[in-house]
Amino acid sequence: MAAVKVYGLPLSTCTARVLTCLIEKGVDYELIPIDLSVGAHKQPAFFAKQPFGQVPVLEDGDVTLFESRAIGSYVSYKYKDQGTDLFRLGNINETALVGVWAEVESQQYNPPISTIVYELVIKGMYGMTTDQAVVDAQSEKLGNVLDVYEARLTENKYLAGNFYSLADQNHIPYTFFLMKTPLASLINSRPHVKAWWEDISSRPYFQKVRANANV
Amino acid sequence: MAAVKVYGLPLSTCTARVLTCLIEKGVDYELIPIDLSVGAHKQPAFFAKQPFGQVPVLEDGDVTLFESRAIGSYVSYKYKDQGTDLFRLGNINETALVGVWAEVESQQYNPPISTIVYELVIKGMYGMTTDQAVVDAQSEKLGNVLDVYEARLTENKYLAGNFYSLADQNHIPYTFFLMKTPLASLINSRPHVKAWWEDISSRPYFQKVRANANV
Ligand SMILES: N[C@@H](CCC(=O)N[C@@H](CS)C(=O)NCC(=O)O)C(=O)O
Ligand SMILES: N[C@@H](CCC(=O)N[C@@H](CS)C(=O)NCC(=O)O)C(=O)O
Repeated sequence: MAAVKVYGLPLSTCTARVLTCLIEKGVDYELIPIDLSVGAHKQPAFFAKQPFGQVPVLEDGDVTLFESRAIGSYVSYKYKDQGTDLFRLGNINETALVGVWAEVESQQYNPPISTIVYELVIKGMYGMTTDQAVVDAQSEKLGNVLDVYEARLTENKYLAGNFYSLADQNHIPYTFFLMKTPLASLINSRPHVKAWWEDISSRPYFQKVRANANV
Repeated sequence: MAAVKVYGLPLSTCTARVLTCLIEKGVDYELIPIDLSVGAHKQPAFFAKQPFGQVPVLEDGDVTLFESRAIGSYVSYKYKDQGTDLFRLGNINETALVGVWAEVESQQYNPPISTIVYELVIKGMYGMTTDQAVVDAQSEKLGNVLDVYEARLTENKYLAGNFYSLADQNHIPYTFFLMKTPLASLINSRPHVKAWWEDISSRPYFQKVRANANV
């Protein structure tokens, strides 16, 4: 039995963000499915682990954590001596830049892309109608963010520098879904962003998890 | 001359988030005002430091950083041996919980409170009209988040545990402005949240910076 337990579901972007970390760090885990479609995340037993009633949750020994990005930082730090060096903890300036660009994902990239994926992908799963005005406004915002990325990735191979890090990795879950929509053009029309995505979407996570998924 | 430079303006919430850290850590800094009202943040010289054209920026020796929350983590880590222990770096479980609740501020608290403060405070400064429907929707969301905080703060004095940390501190800038509006009731109607705010709003930052501000 694995020491680390993840409560969530593989299709959830936030659960995926945690799985990418565990896989890169070579940490064994057990995935305990939480079926959102039957409201398993709104039961008292789950609220006791996650007070907002959301997946994912990570249990590691005596610590229970939530918020996917915080879990990713914890896993990178706790398991710093194994797997990919996601947080560059040996070099404070590199650690700082990983922090900056991870925060850019959280504050600048995530709001527009999560809204677009909700409108174009998730709403469809529930038979709801896409609000095109929302998609247009958010795709303009996302385009502006990607212009900054294009310039950055012209100078460095990855966002924080010439090394793959948590900052790149946190982009994977939503970008994966964006690439299944016509707005994949936002990525594909920017040559350095496109090359970056081709690179980071071939990380081990894709073979280990996505290869077995049917969406 | 101080080694650390902060580009921003004291009234900006994101700049304030960085100043709270530097003051708690006892790090000397020089504040270089960037006048947003004349577009100083949209000049090429500033874009070279901050590609999104936003304040704040921190320069510390040869490193240039942006994103207020990332700067706060960097300052807590770099200056770990002085001032308040904001990140509990000696205890990995405590560090992890600081990370979780700092992320709760970023993902759950910031979106509704920043929208409310924009509608009720910032728009007024520019002679724009508050959209009451937006305020109502966001104040319901913020209330739900504060219900979680009330329960948490019934068990612990602070969000991450029985110690003041970066997680509490990152709440200061927007809550300060909320408290100047009728929606201060969201804080004041929850006894443990109210006591927490009274506590954290008496930190040194308030004497050192706010005491000299006229807003
Ligand atoms: N900021 C949180 C967001 C968690 C989140 O929104 N999880 C979604 C699935 S991706 C969820 O549980 N949704 C159900 C709900 O919010 O009720 C994180 O990164 O972990
Ligand atoms: N997520 C960024 C947000 C920075 C931000 O929005 N700064 C505001 C002032 S509080 C700004 O520069 N606004 C001008 C603009 O966005 O053009 C951070 O935390 O540093």
